[in-house]
Amino acid sequence: MVARPLSTKQVTMESINQRVVKAEYAVRGELVIKAGEMDEALARGEKLPFDNIIYCNIGNPHSVGQVPLTFHRQVLALCMHPEMMQNEQIVANFPSDAVERAKTILAGTGGHGLGAYSHSKGVAHVRNTVAKFIEERDGGRKADPEEIFLTNGASDGVGRLMDLLISSTTDGIMIPIPQYPLYSSGLTLRGGAAVPYYLNESEGWGLSTEGLRESISAARADGIDVKMLVVINPGNPTGQLLSYDNMAGIVKFCAEENLVLCADEVYQENIYIDDRKWSSFRQVMLETETPIELFSFHSTSKGYFGECGLRGGYFEANNIDTDVLDQLYKVASMSLCSNLPGQIMVDLMVSPPKLSDPSGPLFQKEKEEQLASLRRRGEKLSAALNTLTGVTSNPSEAAMYAFPQVALSPKAVAAAEAAGKQADTFYALALLDATGICVVPGSGFGQVDGTWHFRTTFLPPEDQIDAVIDRMRGFHEDFMAKYA
Amino acid sequence: MVARPLSTKQVTMESINQRVVKAEYAVRGELVIKAGEMDEALARGEKLPFDNIIYCNIGNPHSVGQVPLTFHRQVLALCMHPEMMQNEQIVANFPSDAVERAKTILAGTGGHGLGAYSHSKGVAHVRNTVAKFIEERDGGRKADPEEIFLTNGASDGVGRLMDLLISSTTDGIMIPIPQYPLYSSGLTLRGGAAVPYYLNESEGWGLSTEGLRESISAARADGIDVKMLVVINPGNPTGQLLSYDNMAGIVKFCAEENLVLCADEVYQENIYIDDRKWSSFRQVMLETETPIELFSFHSTSKGYFGECGLRGGYFEANNIDTDVLDQLYKVASMSLCSNLPGQIMVDLMVSPPKLSDPSGPLFQKEKEEQLASLRRRGEKLSAALNTLTGVTSNPSEAAMYAFPQVALSPKAVAAAEAAGKQADTFYALALLDATGICVVPGSGFGQVDGTWHFRTTFLPPEDQIDAVIDRMRGFHEDFMAKYA
Repeated sequence: MVARPLSTKQVTMESINQRVVKAEYAVRGELVIKAGEMDEALARGEKLPFDNIIYCNIGNPHSVGQVPLTFHRQVLALCMHPEMMQNEQIVANFPSDAVERAKTILAGTGGHGLGAYSHSKGVAHVRNTVAKFIEERDGGRKADPEEIFLTNGASDGVGRLMDLLISSTTDGIMIPIPQYPLYSSGLTLRGGAAVPYYLNESEGWGLSTEGLRESISAARADGIDVKMLVVINPGNPTGQLLSYDNMAGIVKFCAEENLVLCADEVYQENIYIDDRKWSSFRQVMLETETPIELFSFHSTSKGYFGECGLRGGYFEANNIDTDVLDQLYKVASMSLCSNLPGQIMVDLMVSPPKLSDPSGPLFQKEKEEQLASLRRRGEKLSAALNTLTGVTSNPSEAAMYAFPQVALSPKAVAAAEAAGKQADTFYALALLDATGICVVPGSGFGQVDGTWHFRTTFLPPEDQIDAVIDRMRGFHEDFMAKYA
Repeated sequence: MVARPLSTKQVTMESINQRVVKAEYAVRGELVIKAGEMDEALARGEKLPFDNIIYCNIGNPHSVGQVPLTFHRQVLALCMHPEMMQNEQIVANFPSDAVERAKTILAGTGGHGLGAYSHSKGVAHVRNTVAKFIEERDGGRKADPEEIFLTNGASDGVGRLMDLLISSTTDGIMIPIPQYPLYSSGLTLRGGAAVPYYLNESEGWGLSTEGLRESISAARADGIDVKMLVVINPGNPTGQLLSYDNMAGIVKFCAEENLVLCADEVYQENIYIDDRKWSSFRQVMLETETPIELFSFHSTSKGYFGECGLRGGYFEANNIDTDVLDQLYKVASMSLCSNLPGQIMVDLMVSPPKLSDPSGPLFQKEKEEQLASLRRRGEKLSAALNTLTGVTSNPSEAAMYAFPQVALSPKAVAAAEAAGKQADTFYALALLDATGICVVPGSGFGQVDGTWHFRTTFLPPEDQIDAVIDRMRGFHEDFMAKYA
C-alpha cells in the first residue's frame, strides 16, 4: 500500500524517544547486519572471497554446532507433550530418570504444565531447586526461594533492576570498561549515568579498588548519585576470572560506599583453568562477613549447555528490603511470568542427573567433553592470536571470549578516520570483508582511549578453529603490512 | 544472615524509582495475593468456608483445566528433542504431518533448533508464516515479514512500543476506560500521560468518535503531546466486539489526528456471536483506504489454544518508517530474541493443520469443542450475572471475560470507605472471603466515577461454572441485603 507522506507521520526518528536512538548494542550491531547481508548474498549464489560467514560475534553455541544435552531435552520434550508418558512404546525409549523428572516438574507446576502462566516470580518448585543449588554451591548457606526471580534469560532481570534504580539523569551505575553492552545500552535507554571503572588489561583484566574509588569520587563530584556497581565474573568480553582477594575487595568497597552489587555470573560454569576456582560474590560476601545488598544473575544460555533460545535465567536478591522485593514482584507481574520451557531449563541446569542416576554417565560425558573442547578451543585461539603481529591477548581463563588488543598503526587510524569509522570497527569490517569472520570491535564494549581491541568467541567447532585462525592470520598480516 | 540496618541501605522504598512504586497492576494485585495466601492455608489443612480457590482473575486457561492442542504440542516436543525423529518406535506414534512440520520448522531455524538465539525479530521462517497468515486473514493484502517482530507474549511488544514513544511526562497515549492495566501501568512506569477515553457501557462498550475528540482536545489543552491511541478489540475487560463502522471511525480519527493506532487484537480467535465477524484494524484501514501508522498485536496466550506459559506473540507494523523499525530492531537485539518455543507456537497458531492433513480432523474437533464450550460458559455466566440483584452485564460477545456493573448501595460504599478500600475492592475481597472466588475489581481497569464493576473470566471448567454461579449468588444476595 502507499505509505503516508513522511511530513504527516507521527513516528519519526525525530519524534521518538531519543534515548532509544542513542542506545548502542554492538554485539548485534553494524558488523552483524553486514554479515547477515553477506550470508544472504552467498545463499543467492553470489561470489565472495569465502564460502561461509563464521559468526564469532556472539556467545550463541548452538548456532555454531553445539548440540543440546540429551537428558535436558528429553525432560523438556516430555514436559512439552506429557501424553508421551502414557504411551509405553515411547516411554520405553526414554531413561527412567528423565520420565521421573518430567513428572516431578509437571507436578511442581500444579499439574498446569507449560501452557499456564506461573507465579510471576516463577514456578515455586523451580525456585526451590535453585535455592538448594545456591545453598550447596555457596558452602551450605541457606538461600530463600522468595528472593529468587526466574526471568527470560539474565538480560530480562538486569533490565528490571535498572528500571528499579534509574529514574533520573543523576542516577548512576558503575560499569566496567570493557563491559557487556547490555549495561551501557540499558542505562542509555533509561536516561541514567554510566560511571565507568577500568579493568586492568596488564593484570589479567583485574580490578583495583583504588580505581573504583577514583571513579566513584569523580562521579559524585559531578553530582551523580551512584547506586550500584556491576561486576561481570567470569568476564565478558574479557574472559577473566577474578581472584578471591579482588572479589573480597569489591564487596568491601560496596559495603563502605553503600552500593548495591550487581553480580553478572552467567559464565560461572565456563572455567578453563585449574589453579583457581570460581566463587560466587554471595559466597565471598558470606565468608568475609561483609553483608551488602546483592543481586546475582545466572542464565541457561551459557555454561556447557548454551541454551540461548530457551531464554531461561534467574536472579537472586540478598539483603534487599522485602518491600522492594514486592515492587520487583509487581513489575514482574506486569509481564505475567517468564516462559515456562526456560524456567524448566533453569531447574535442569541447577539440578542435572547425578552420576548414579540412569542418565548420569551420559550427562557427565557430554558435560566434560563440552567443557574440555571449549578449553582446547580457547587455548588454541588465544595462543594463535598472540602470534599475530602487534596482537596481545590475555589467556581466556573463562567464559567464551578472547579480547585481544591490536596495535593499529597511525596510518590505519587515519584511514579509519577518513572512512568515518572507529579504527577497530574499520579493522573488523575489513576482516569481515576479507574472511567472512564476524567479530565485535572493542569500541562496542569500551576500552582505554587509544587502544584497539575486538571480541571474538571461541565457539566455532574444533575442526573449524584452525581455519578461523588461518583466515584471520592471512587477513591480519596483510592489513598490518598495508598500513605499516 | 543478619541484614544490614535499614538506615544504611541503598535500595529502599524511598530511594527507588517512584514510578515503579506508583504503577498498579490489579490483575495480579491485592486480591490475587490474598487468594494465594488462602490457597496455602487450605493446603496446610486450615478450614475456610470453601474447599478451593476459583481463580477468575486472569485469562490463564490451562491453569483451570484447559488442555493443550495435540498437534501443536507434538510438533513442539519433536522440535525440543529432534533425536526422537531418528527413533522409529517413537516416530511411529506421531502423525506424519507433525513430524513433517517439526522438520520444516527446524530447517527454518537454519538447523540450529530451539537452543540458539534467533534473529532478534524472530526466526525468518516463522515471520514468513505470520505474514502469510495476515495476508490471508485480511483479504489477500500482502504483509511484509520485515515488519513483523516476534515477542515474549504481546505484553513484551507493547512495552517496547511504549519505550519508543514515551520519553517525557508530556508524551501521552489514549487508553480506553475500562482498559487492560498493562497500558496504564506501562505508562506510569515510563512517566508518560494516560489520556483516557470512555467506552460506552450502555451501547455494548462501543466507542464514540465524539468522545475520542473531546478526550484528545482536553489532553492537548493540558499540553500533552498525544502520540497513540490504544484499542483493545475484542475487548478486555469488556468482552465486546467493535462494529466495523466503529472501527472505520477510529481509523479515520487516527488519520485526522495523526495518531499511531495500537491495535491489541490478542482475542481475535475468541468470538462467540454469529451476526458479526471480527475484522483486524489492518483490514479496515486497507478497505477504507485510510492509511495510518498501525501496530497490531497477537499472542499465543488466548484464542482456543491458551498457551500463556509459552510466552509467544508478535506485533506487525504498518506504515512505520524503516529507520524507526531499525530502532525497534536494535531495542529487540538488546534482549537478543524472544524464546524459541514461543516463536514456534506462533508458527503453529497461525498455520494449524488443514482438515485434509492427517492431524486435521483431531485439530478441528479440539478447536471447535473449545470454542463452543467457551461460548456456552460465557453465555451461562452472563445470563446468571444479570439475574443477581443490582447487577447488569453486557453479553460477552468475545474474549474471556464478563465485566458486570454492580449497583453498590451508599451503605456499602460507606463501609468500604471506613475500611479504607474502594467499594468494588471491598466487594471483591468479601466475595473472596466468603466463596474463594477471585475476581478483579473494576477500579483496576478504570470505570465511570460512581459506578462499580468487577472482571471475571468464564474459564473455569464447564462442570464448575454452575458452582461458581451458585457460590457467587449466595454471597451476592447476602452482601446486598446486609448493605441495603
